[in-house]
Amino acid sequence: MSKEITSRSEDYSQWYNDIVRKANLADHSAVRGCMVIKPYGFGIWENIKSVLDGMFKETGHVNAYFPLFIPKSFLSKEAEHVEGFAKECAVVTHHRLMNDPNGGGVVVDPSARLEEELIVRPTSETIIWNTYRDWIKSYRDLPLLINQWANVVRWEMRTRLFLRTAEFLWQEGHTAHASSEEAIQETLTILDLYAKFAEEYMAMPVIKGVKSANERFAGAVDTYTIEALMQDSKALQAGTSHFLGQNFAKAFDVKFLNENQKQELVWATSWGVSTRLMGGLIMTHSDDQGLVIPPRLAPTQVVIIPIPKPGPEIDEAADKIMAELKAMGISVKYDTDKKKRPGFKFAEYEMHGIPVRIGIGKRDLEQGMVEIARRDTKEKTQQPLDSAAKYIQQLLEDIQQNLFERAKKFRDDRITKVDDFDQFKEVLNTKGGFISAHWDGTTETEVKIKELTKATIRCIPLDNELEDGKCILTGQPSKQRVLFAKAY
Amino acid sequence: MSKEITSRSEDYSQWYNDIVRKANLADHSAVRGCMVIKPYGFGIWENIKSVLDGMFKETGHVNAYFPLFIPKSFLSKEAEHVEGFAKECAVVTHHRLMNDPNGGGVVVDPSARLEEELIVRPTSETIIWNTYRDWIKSYRDLPLLINQWANVVRWEMRTRLFLRTAEFLWQEGHTAHASSEEAIQETLTILDLYAKFAEEYMAMPVIKGVKSANERFAGAVDTYTIEALMQDSKALQAGTSHFLGQNFAKAFDVKFLNENQKQELVWATSWGVSTRLMGGLIMTHSDDQGLVIPPRLAPTQVVIIPIPKPGPEIDEAADKIMAELKAMGISVKYDTDKKKRPGFKFAEYEMHGIPVRIGIGKRDLEQGMVEIARRDTKEKTQQPLDSAAKYIQQLLEDIQQNLFERAKKFRDDRITKVDDFDQFKEVLNTKGGFISAHWDGTTETEVKIKELTKATIRCIPLDNELEDGKCILTGQPSKQRVLFAKAY
Repeated sequence: MSKEITSRSEDYSQWYNDIVRKANLADHSAVRGCMVIKPYGFGIWENIKSVLDGMFKETGHVNAYFPLFIPKSFLSKEAEHVEGFAKECAVVTHHRLMNDPNGGGVVVDPSARLEEELIVRPTSETIIWNTYRDWIKSYRDLPLLINQWANVVRWEMRTRLFLRTAEFLWQEGHTAHASSEEAIQETLTILDLYAKFAEEYMAMPVIKGVKSANERFAGAVDTYTIEALMQDSKALQAGTSHFLGQNFAKAFDVKFLNENQKQELVWATSWGVSTRLMGGLIMTHSDDQGLVIPPRLAPTQVVIIPIPKPGPEIDEAADKIMAELKAMGISVKYDTDKKKRPGFKFAEYEMHGIPVRIGIGKRDLEQGMVEIARRDTKEKTQQPLDSAAKYIQQLLEDIQQNLFERAKKFRDDRITKVDDFDQFKEVLNTKGGFISAHWDGTTETEVKIKELTKATIRCIPLDNELEDGKCILTGQPSKQRVLFAKAY
Repeated sequence: MSKEITSRSEDYSQWYNDIVRKANLADHSAVRGCMVIKPYGFGIWENIKSVLDGMFKETGHVNAYFPLFIPKSFLSKEAEHVEGFAKECAVVTHHRLMNDPNGGGVVVDPSARLEEELIVRPTSETIIWNTYRDWIKSYRDLPLLINQWANVVRWEMRTRLFLRTAEFLWQEGHTAHASSEEAIQETLTILDLYAKFAEEYMAMPVIKGVKSANERFAGAVDTYTIEALMQDSKALQAGTSHFLGQNFAKAFDVKFLNENQKQELVWATSWGVSTRLMGGLIMTHSDDQGLVIPPRLAPTQVVIIPIPKPGPEIDEAADKIMAELKAMGISVKYDTDKKKRPGFKFAEYEMHGIPVRIGIGKRDLEQGMVEIARRDTKEKTQQPLDSAAKYIQQLLEDIQQNLFERAKKFRDDRITKVDDFDQFKEVLNTKGGFISAHWDGTTETEVKIKELTKATIRCIPLDNELEDGKCILTGQPSKQRVLFAKAY
């Protein structure tokens, strides 16, 4: 079965597509740019959602739901926002179909043209801030800490499953505050939450930083980001948290009466992660045999395979392990399908990235032993049946940790300091990864570097040390290095 | 605060709107027909989702996600389906906006017209069965038991929050089977699941039945329904489960190789409940003081109010009860806001339908007592602090049961047998509710009755007894009574 996927070294992009397809994660649909998320892929997304939703609620956020459609005029109210989002989008112009009077099937009813076109939300700042105007009157109504799980649409010309699709699923937080300080604090709280989720659950190391002006969210004062590194040494922006200042409050006239009975504009943040995380998860850990999933997000953490097929003794041993694992809160499946050989099953579960596989054979069982294989390193070991569950409980922790360490080492080995532009291009085209270099701080230089190399500034790391230097392109003075990379 | 809502007897429809607004459940949005579900309302919906999702998974279903958009031509493939759904819908015709060359803001870019219009899904049978064609090859791929939680859009001219909105949230199950029997069994399994959910969680009694041909889902062979009765004696269709036969398999050419190596068309079901359930929940239990929520779906089950305000002894007692309740898995909130008086809080929590309220006053506490009030009957009792948590655990069960019994008595009292058309009209216009009457089985008669009285056939109950009679309108022979009602 593993022969069916292209190796990373042969064609990384095809390898990714093969895994998404062969591990039953997602499919292209009949609608251009829109994907179907298959049950197995959706099971991973449900785990991602569930953990994040719990983290949002623990930090005082609540969920709500706002309309799918945004009146066209709303997009124009925030000047930068319209430039960023009112371009490639799905525009609803009519509200009725009718039978073609010429017998050509169903056609748009020209008499059902909307007075004002509706845009399928590419992001919801405008419709939400238009609503907040009614909800916020006084400082007592603040802060408002609301999140929404929703689908959004951005008309993309070149799409890739999970990484870039016209429709995608995401969460978008939209909070309102009485002060700038509090809003900035919220932005950073969420950035930390995202980083914690990425590292502790996805086992995906990330760099926290702030975006340059050129890479900022359209309408934000500051955009913070977590940046990860994929196995092809390209960066992936995995989540963003925006401090929006008073821009949207101004655009939608959202004011509150402060404690001194004075009207003030409300301060805002917004933040989101999307099904793009699925792409990051796949590309951080998977190998040439298929998907690798960190145990904490795996829909099935352990699979038991009878060798060569089920039977009374093997069933009994499997039942015992299953009962013990379930009591530990570990998800486990016993594959009793008699039509498939064990070797076929091994390959299938490897492809699907099940973290731990238990093989139970009659001969081993006579010695009181079972075989336990881990997906990440493919190591196998014989363990006593009686202590197998306990062994696995620890093993799942080890796998989670190992995946993170492995990805972190890979990433750390690919952060390279360079001090001139030739070296910059050299590293970019050979080793890739993040390049730490001085930049003069202007958008002009940033754009020029992008034109020349396709590399962009991924972020200015939050824990950056100040250091005098010279911009690699212009030689102008610089106070700190920033991280460049080619990115998804 | 309760003065702010209109009483049911004065204006039932206004009473409903007042509750939705005053209990912070939902709001109209700036987009015609689309609602904003506010955090408190969404919290109830999250509980509904969570319980149903668990029930679907227990019965072997998995979740997936299909595109928001449906190519226009897909809707035409199933002849009846197109009649039912290709009428009032949101049509996407363009994929880009541009700056108006005449300076009129942002306008639709005429050069970005889609080759084929996309419809925002009103329901997903077509896009899903087009996908199933690729997923189903052999009997080994069946059954396919998939559910989707999604937003859908049906362009409604007259909307009411939760009950009828252009955009709403729902789940839609779409299953594929190797035989007619298995598909019918699935349809009924889901109908039972819906009825169980409605009665055991929503405390809303329902009648299970099958729809007449005229009320069937567009494209179904048979539509099963659960029908509830609201406090204004109008019926509410609360959930439907459809046996689709091979209609969609035929339309999208979905065949499987059976065990005898022969190609056969696949059998289908689909089924759904939506945010409309929120409307049913509100209208089944609430009263002139506000919302009433069954404990099993209440986001907050118990609220503790210090009288008149927090203080060391009261805080200590509250902490003790909270710890005990939380250990029992009961959600509880301690309202320590010093700016609001207890009377104001009482009214507020009454309006929001919190099932149980605990008042802790210093004087009562000296006697070791606290006051416990139940929302459903508004009865109050003094209970010892030490056994308060245990008392409340039982009380929540009692409230859940009482709400169901009360609603069931109300409903049962409003099922009236009538045997002629004058009596039919009389009952309909005075008492309302379900009218059990003979009908000749023709769509013609059904439509005629609807024209004359606005009553429709809600269902033919599954547990119907056969009984010879005469149609109330035509006098033609009939073998069984059916249930008529005016409905939402």
